[in-house]
Amino acid sequence: MAAADTHEVDLVVVGAGLAGLAAAREAVAAGSSVVVVEARDRVGGRVLNEDIGGGNVVEVGGQWIGPTQDRLAALARELGVDTFPTWGQGENLIEYAGGLRRYTGAIPRINPLVLVEVERAQRRLNRLAKRVPLEAPWETRGATRLDGQTAATWMRRNLPSKPGRMLMELGIEAVWAAQPEDISLLHVLFYIHSAGSLELLFDTEGGAQQDRFVGGSQLVPLRMASELGADRVFLGAPVRAIRWGGQGGVTVEADGVSVQARRAVVAVAPTLAGRIAYDPPLPGFRDQLTQRMPLGTVAKCMAIYDEPFWRLEGLSGQGMSDTGPIRLTFDNSPPDGVPGVMLGFLEGRRARELGRVPAEQRREAVIDCFTRLYGPRAAKPDAYVERLWAEEEWTRGCYGCHMPPGAWTSYGPALREPIGPIHWAGAEYATRWNGYMDGAVRSGEAAAREAVARL
Amino acid sequence: MAAADTHEVDLVVVGAGLAGLAAAREAVAAGSSVVVVEARDRVGGRVLNEDIGGGNVVEVGGQWIGPTQDRLAALARELGVDTFPTWGQGENLIEYAGGLRRYTGAIPRINPLVLVEVERAQRRLNRLAKRVPLEAPWETRGATRLDGQTAATWMRRNLPSKPGRMLMELGIEAVWAAQPEDISLLHVLFYIHSAGSLELLFDTEGGAQQDRFVGGSQLVPLRMASELGADRVFLGAPVRAIRWGGQGGVTVEADGVSVQARRAVVAVAPTLAGRIAYDPPLPGFRDQLTQRMPLGTVAKCMAIYDEPFWRLEGLSGQGMSDTGPIRLTFDNSPPDGVPGVMLGFLEGRRARELGRVPAEQRREAVIDCFTRLYGPRAAKPDAYVERLWAEEEWTRGCYGCHMPPGAWTSYGPALREPIGPIHWAGAEYATRWNGYMDGAVRSGEAAAREAVARL
Repeated sequence: MAAADTHEVDLVVVGAGLAGLAAAREAVAAGSSVVVVEARDRVGGRVLNEDIGGGNVVEVGGQWIGPTQDRLAALARELGVDTFPTWGQGENLIEYAGGLRRYTGAIPRINPLVLVEVERAQRRLNRLAKRVPLEAPWETRGATRLDGQTAATWMRRNLPSKPGRMLMELGIEAVWAAQPEDISLLHVLFYIHSAGSLELLFDTEGGAQQDRFVGGSQLVPLRMASELGADRVFLGAPVRAIRWGGQGGVTVEADGVSVQARRAVVAVAPTLAGRIAYDPPLPGFRDQLTQRMPLGTVAKCMAIYDEPFWRLEGLSGQGMSDTGPIRLTFDNSPPDGVPGVMLGFLEGRRARELGRVPAEQRREAVIDCFTRLYGPRAAKPDAYVERLWAEEEWTRGCYGCHMPPGAWTSYGPALREPIGPIHWAGAEYATRWNGYMDGAVRSGEAAAREAVARL
Repeated sequence: MAAADTHEVDLVVVGAGLAGLAAAREAVAAGSSVVVVEARDRVGGRVLNEDIGGGNVVEVGGQWIGPTQDRLAALARELGVDTFPTWGQGENLIEYAGGLRRYTGAIPRINPLVLVEVERAQRRLNRLAKRVPLEAPWETRGATRLDGQTAATWMRRNLPSKPGRMLMELGIEAVWAAQPEDISLLHVLFYIHSAGSLELLFDTEGGAQQDRFVGGSQLVPLRMASELGADRVFLGAPVRAIRWGGQGGVTVEADGVSVQARRAVVAVAPTLAGRIAYDPPLPGFRDQLTQRMPLGTVAKCMAIYDEPFWRLEGLSGQGMSDTGPIRLTFDNSPPDGVPGVMLGFLEGRRARELGRVPAEQRREAVIDCFTRLYGPRAAKPDAYVERLWAEEEWTRGCYGCHMPPGAWTSYGPALREPIGPIHWAGAEYATRWNGYMDGAVRSGEAAAREAVARL
C-alpha cells in the first residue's frame, strides 16, 4: 500500500453527499479549514444525474423539492440552480381490481366510502403526528405503545376496507420505500410531523413532489463541491477507520488519504457509519442504534420515448397500480417535454423481489406495467434507465433509513449525540424534512455549526 | 504496515466462536485443510470464562445446556467437558407490586386468573409456532400478518391483564434480551419452534437452563481450538476484507494475516458480517438483511459471596422482579457451592439504560436489587463481575440477533444462502436451537459440510 496523503485541518467531513457538502460549506463560511473525504469517485451520494443524451439528464436518485423545503431552496438559489414544476396537467390514472380509471386530485375515488375512510385515517395520523417532539420522539405521550407497533398494525385497526389499506400502503411505500410491516408507527408519526403533514409528503402540487431542478438535482452538490474546490474534496477514498481517543482530535483514515482534524462530521447514513472501524470503539448505545436503522429498498426505473405521448391523451403521467410491480408513475420529462420520460418506482417488497432477478427480466416487468397503464406506445421505449440503490456499496438502500418498532424509544437519544470529537449528519438526522434532500442540507449545516462552535 | 503472513488452504473460517470452531473441526475431520481467523486474542466469541480465583470460574457469556441440545452435548462429551445441574433446590422468589413472595414451579401464582391467562397465551404461542417451517419461516401460512406485528402487539390482544403481560414480557426479555416491542411475532414463533416449545426456552429443569458445564462453558471452544492447534487458529486478526470475485476462490484479509482458500465460512453474527468489506460487494438482498438483524442487549452481572446464603433460607436463587433493573436471578455458584455466586441479568431496555451509566452506579443498582430480593447479606459481596456485550467491538450485543417485523418475510431467503464461495454460520443461522450454543454448533457443522461438498 502506498503511503497515505496526509492532511491537517480543523474539520474533516466523511461523505460528500448533500449533508457532508453542506457541512463543509458552512464550516468554510465560518472560517474553518475543511477536508471532505468521499468513497465514490463522484459527489452527491443518493443524488445523481444520468446523461440521456441531447443535453438532457434524468435523476436516478433524489430529485424533487416542495413547499417549506426552504434550506434546499435557498441553497439552490445561491448556487444558481433553477426549478420547474413537476408535470401535472391532465388526469391521473389508477389501476385497481383489474380495471383502469382516470381521476383528479390526490386520492382516487375508488368509491366514496373508501375515500372517507382514507381521509379519516390521514387526519388521524396528522393529529397523532403533531404530538411527536421532533427533537425527541421518544418523549411522545404514549411513546412505548406507538413505537411498539408497526404501521401495518395501525392500518389494520384504522382502515377497515381492503382498498383503503391498499391506498395507504401505496402511500407508505412511496414515502419510505419499505412496507408498513417494517416501520414503527412512532417513526411514521415523527416523519409526518417532520415534513408537516401527510399531504405534504404525498402530494405533487403543494407537496414534496411539486418541483424539479433544471439540469438535475445533482447540480446542487456538484456546484457545492466545485465551490469548495478539489483541494478540499477527495474522491475515491473510502474511509476505513476513525481514530479519536487521544488528546482530543480525530484521524480519519481512507484509502490513500489520511486526515488529522480537531473534529469530524460523519455524513453517511447511520447504517454505513456503523461499518467504519472506530478506535476506540463507539459506545454500545450508539453502535446498537446503527444496527436498527435499515435503509429502504427502491429501484428507480425510467423509460424514455421520443415524446410524452400520454399527455396527448390528457394524462398527467401520474399513476397508481394495485398490481404493480410499479405502483407509482410520474412524467419525468425534461422542462421542454422532449424526450418523454416515464418514471416508475419499484419500492419495498417489490424492489426486494425484482432486485434479485436478471436486469432484462426486471426491465420487462417494468415496461409491461407501463404498457398496461399507458398503452402500447409504452412498450417500445428508446432507452431504459434504472438504479438499484441497495446494490451500491456506498449507499446500500434508498430513500433513507427507517426505524423499526422499538428503536426510537430505546435508542433515540443516541441519534444526534456527538461522540467525543465526532458529529453526525445526513437526512436521517434532520428534525425538519427528515429523509429528504432539504433535511440533509439542514442536518449538515447544523452539525457543522455544532462542530465549529467546539473547535 | 508489515507484510501479511500468507496462507493457502481449502477452507478459511472467519470467527473462532462455537460455530466457527465447529465448522473448522468438521472440515478437518473431512480431510480439508483449514485456517480459522479470529479478531480477538481468544476463542469462544460470546462464550467466555472469567477466573474468580480459587480455581473457580464464572461464565460471563453463554453457559447453559438443556434437553434436546444434542449436538452441544455430544461435542462436550467428546471433548471431556462434564455438566452438572443448575441449582434449583428450594423456593423461587418473585418481587411483584412492591411485595416479595415465594413460589414453586415455572409461573409464579400472582393470582389464579393470571396463571390461567399466561398458560393460555403460552399454549397459543406453542400452537402457532408449530406452523412455522424452520427452513423457511416466510412460508408460514399468514406470514405477512404474523411478521407484520411485534410481539408486544400480540401480547396486548392475548394477555388482557397487566400482570399477565408483565410475566410474558419478562420471559421475552430473558430469551431475546430485547423488548416485545422490538421483535417480530413471526420471529418469536420461529424461535419457539426452533427450540421445541416456550417451556423449553423458559424453564430451568427440563429446559434450556437445566445444566451447566464443569469448568465453565468456554472449555468447549478452548478444547476445540486446542485440538485444531495454533497453526490452524490465528488470533488477534480482525478480518477487514474478503475478496471473492475472481476465478473461484476467496481471499480473507485480516490484520497481519492473509488467507487464500477455495471456500470460506463466515461465522460471525450477521450484523458484524455485514461490516466486512467484500470485493465485489455483496448483493443488496444479503446486505439489506444484515441491516435488519440487530443484536439484543444484555449485561450479565454476578455478585460473589463466601457462600450461597440464600440456600440456607430455603431459596433456590431463582428470582423474578417486576421492578428490576435485574428482572431475573439465578444461583450461579460452582458445582460444590463455594463461593456463592448470585447471577442477575440486565436485559433489553434496562441494559440499554444502565449500559450508559458509570460502572459504579450500575453495580450499585444491581446489588441494591439483589439486596431487596435476598436480604442484607447480598449487600456486601466479596467481588462483582459484569459483562456488557454491546460494548465489545467484536460482538456488539447478546444473546444474539433478532428479527424486527418484516425482515423474515422480505429477506428470509437471504439468510442461509451461500454467496459464491462464501458460506455463513453462527447461532443466528441455525434451524434447531437458533440463538443458542447448540444452534451455533449445528450451524457451524452444517456450513462446513455444505462448503466441503463443494470444494
